[in-house]
Amino acid sequence: MPNLTQTSTLLKSLGITRPTLILDHQQTLLNIASMAHKAQNAAVRLRPHGKTHQSAAVGKLCHMQGIHTITASSLDMALYFAANGWDDITDAIPVNTLEIDKINHLASKIKLNLLVDHPAAVSALAAGLTHPVRIWLEADLGYKRTGVSYENLDQALAIAQQIEQAEQMRFVGLLTHAGHTYVERSVAGITAVYQQVLTRLQVMQNHLLQNGIARCAISIGDTPACSVLNDFTGVDEIRPGNFVFYDLMQAQIGSCTSDQISVAVACPVIGLYPERQTAVIHGGGVHFAKDMLTDDHGRALFGQLTTITDGTFSGALPAATLTSVSQEHGTLTLTDPTLFNQLSLGDLVLVLPVHSCMTADLYSSYLDLDGQRYGRIPRQP
Amino acid sequence: MPNLTQTSTLLKSLGITRPTLILDHQQTLLNIASMAHKAQNAAVRLRPHGKTHQSAAVGKLCHMQGIHTITASSLDMALYFAANGWDDITDAIPVNTLEIDKINHLASKIKLNLLVDHPAAVSALAAGLTHPVRIWLEADLGYKRTGVSYENLDQALAIAQQIEQAEQMRFVGLLTHAGHTYVERSVAGITAVYQQVLTRLQVMQNHLLQNGIARCAISIGDTPACSVLNDFTGVDEIRPGNFVFYDLMQAQIGSCTSDQISVAVACPVIGLYPERQTAVIHGGGVHFAKDMLTDDHGRALFGQLTTITDGTFSGALPAATLTSVSQEHGTLTLTDPTLFNQLSLGDLVLVLPVHSCMTADLYSSYLDLDGQRYGRIPRQP
Repeated sequence: MPNLTQTSTLLKSLGITRPTLILDHQQTLLNIASMAHKAQNAAVRLRPHGKTHQSAAVGKLCHMQGIHTITASSLDMALYFAANGWDDITDAIPVNTLEIDKINHLASKIKLNLLVDHPAAVSALAAGLTHPVRIWLEADLGYKRTGVSYENLDQALAIAQQIEQAEQMRFVGLLTHAGHTYVERSVAGITAVYQQVLTRLQVMQNHLLQNGIARCAISIGDTPACSVLNDFTGVDEIRPGNFVFYDLMQAQIGSCTSDQISVAVACPVIGLYPERQTAVIHGGGVHFAKDMLTDDHGRALFGQLTTITDGTFSGALPAATLTSVSQEHGTLTLTDPTLFNQLSLGDLVLVLPVHSCMTADLYSSYLDLDGQRYGRIPRQP
Repeated sequence: MPNLTQTSTLLKSLGITRPTLILDHQQTLLNIASMAHKAQNAAVRLRPHGKTHQSAAVGKLCHMQGIHTITASSLDMALYFAANGWDDITDAIPVNTLEIDKINHLASKIKLNLLVDHPAAVSALAAGLTHPVRIWLEADLGYKRTGVSYENLDQALAIAQQIEQAEQMRFVGLLTHAGHTYVERSVAGITAVYQQVLTRLQVMQNHLLQNGIARCAISIGDTPACSVLNDFTGVDEIRPGNFVFYDLMQAQIGSCTSDQISVAVACPVIGLYPERQTAVIHGGGVHFAKDMLTDDHGRALFGQLTTITDGTFSGALPAATLTSVSQEHGTLTLTDPTLFNQLSLGDLVLVLPVHSCMTADLYSSYLDLDGQRYGRIPRQP
C-alpha cells in the first residue's frame, strides 16, 4: 500500500506550505542521460527543446551529459539560454519578423538557427539581418500546423533557393515537428507515423539536392518517436523536449512509464468529503494548467498522485486521480478507501502533471528533494 | 468590414513585438462602475474577487468606485492586496492550516475573513490563532466541490457553534460559490440556479439562527448571477470576480455581450496558409491558458479576434476564431476570406480570451491602449 503520510511528512520537512513545483533530480538526470546515450549510439545530434524546463540549472544537467546545442520556442527563451552559456540555439517556431532587433542581437553573440516557411519571412530577414544566421525550412508532413507541405515540392525548393541567395543566410535543411505522434497510443503507431514522416522528408530532401541545393540536413523533434525508436538513419538531428521530465500524457502515449516522470506539484489538502471519497487540494488551473487526459474509464484526468520512495517518485497511483480543477482548487477522487483514509487536512500530496511543459511554465523555480532551488526563466512581461 | 490592419498598426504604435496582455481601460472602468452601481442599488456589499485581475493598479480602479472590500483565493494573494492598501480581505478558499504564520501576520494587520468547512480546520485555527479573525462557513448548495452540504444542517450548526466557542474567531455567516451557474446558457437558467441556491442558504441560515447562533450573513459569489440579476434580497454580500474583464465564456453564458470584454492578447502573425484559410500566431497555451469553449457548430474555440474602435475593443469576430493552441503556437481559422486577405506576416492581431482570469494569470502586467503598464502580483515561487 502506498504511504501518503510518509510522503506528506517528507514534503513538510522541506518547509512546503503552498503549491510547489518539485523536481526529482535523480530521475531527471536518468532521463537526460538515457536520451544522450541513445543519440550518441545512433550518431545523431541531440538538440533538446528547452521549452519543457526553461531553466538554466536544468540546462546545466544537459551540459554535463555532453549536450551543447539547444532548441527554444521564442526569441526571449533563446535570449535567456544565450545569457546562460548556450552558444548554438535553434528558435523552432516560424520567425517573428517584428523581433529583428532581438535576432540581430542574438546573431551577433551565438550561432543562431531560425525557422521559416514563407517567402515573406525570408524577404524580411534579408532586408533586416546584420549578422549571419542559419535557416531551417519548416516542413509540414501532415500535422497541418505550420510548414511547407510535403506535397508542395516546388514551393520548398523556391524558398530554399531564396535563402541561398540572401547574403546573411545559410540554408541548413528541413525541420519538422511531427505533432501527430501525440494522438498515437502504441509503439507501432508512433513508429508508423515516424516512418511516414521520414519518407516524406526524404522526398523533399532529394528534390532540393537534385535541384542545386548543396546540402540539406533533416531535424525531427517529437518526444514519442525519440523515446521509442533507436534507429534514426537518415536523420541529422533530434529535438525532443518533454523527455527531460515526461508526464502522464507521455505515459499514456507509451513514450515512458509513469515512474520516469520527474516533476510533480506538492499541494496542501484543504477539504475532505468522505461521502464522495474526494479530497480538495490547494492546486488548480494556475498550478497545473488545464491539459486533460481521458482515462481507461472515459473519465477526465488532470493529474495523479505519486509517493516518494528512496528519494525518487514512485509512479502514478491510478486510484488517486485529480478529476477536476478550477482556478485554485483541485478535486482528487480516491477510488481506494484505504488511500482516502490516509489523508488529513493539512497534509501535503504530490501530484504528477498531465503536461509537464505547461505545468512548469507556471512557476519561477523547481525545488528538489534535497531542498535545492533550480531557477527558471523570468515570467513574460 | 472590421479593419484588422488598422488594429495592427495601432498595436505596433505601442511598441509591441511579442504576445502582450492588453487592457481596455475604459471598458474595465465601465464594468466596475456598473457592478458597483448595481450593488449600491440593491443595498448589498460588493467584495469583488481579486483573483481575476490580481493587480494593485486594477484594484485602485475599484477603490475609485467606492469599493473597499476584496476577495482573494490564496493567502499569498491576500498578502499582496494587504500590501497594496486593502484592509478588509476574505480568502475564499477553505483555509490552508499549514499557513498559520501568514494568517497570523495578516490578522495582525487587517480585517481578515477566512473560510472553513471542516471541524478539523476550526480546531487547527483555534490552536494556532494569535489575532482575531472572522470566519465564514462554506455552504455547498449542489456544486459539490467544497463546503458543508445544505442537506447536512446539523453539521453546519455544529461547526458554527465550534467557531463561536473559539477565542479568536467570530462566526460571520454562510458563504457559497454557485459554480454550477457556469453550465447555464440563459438568464432564465442562471436565475433558476440562483433562486435554488438562495432558498437552500436561507434554510441553513434559519436553522443556525433558531439554534442559538446570534448572526448569520449570506455571501454569494458567481459572476453570471451577479451580472444578470438586480434583486439580491436576503443576501448581504456579493463576490463576483470575472465581471471586471469578462470573457468569451461569460459572453456564451449570457453574463455579458462580447463588446464588454476588456482584456485581450496582442499576438504576432507568424504563418499564413491560404489553402486552409488559417493563420498561425505566436500565441499558445502559455499565452492564453487552455480553457476551451464549443461554438454553435460544435467546434473548439480558444479565443476570437477583435478590433479596436475609438479606443475600445469592438467585440468578438466569430469569423476569426482561435481553433487550436499548442505551447507557443495558435491557429486562427478565418471563415471569411476578406478577413484572411487582410493579414500579412508580421501583423499583430488582438485575441479575446475564453477565460480572462486564467489568461491574465500568465503575465506580469497589463498594457493599456495609451501605453500605460498595470502591474500584477509576482509569479508564485
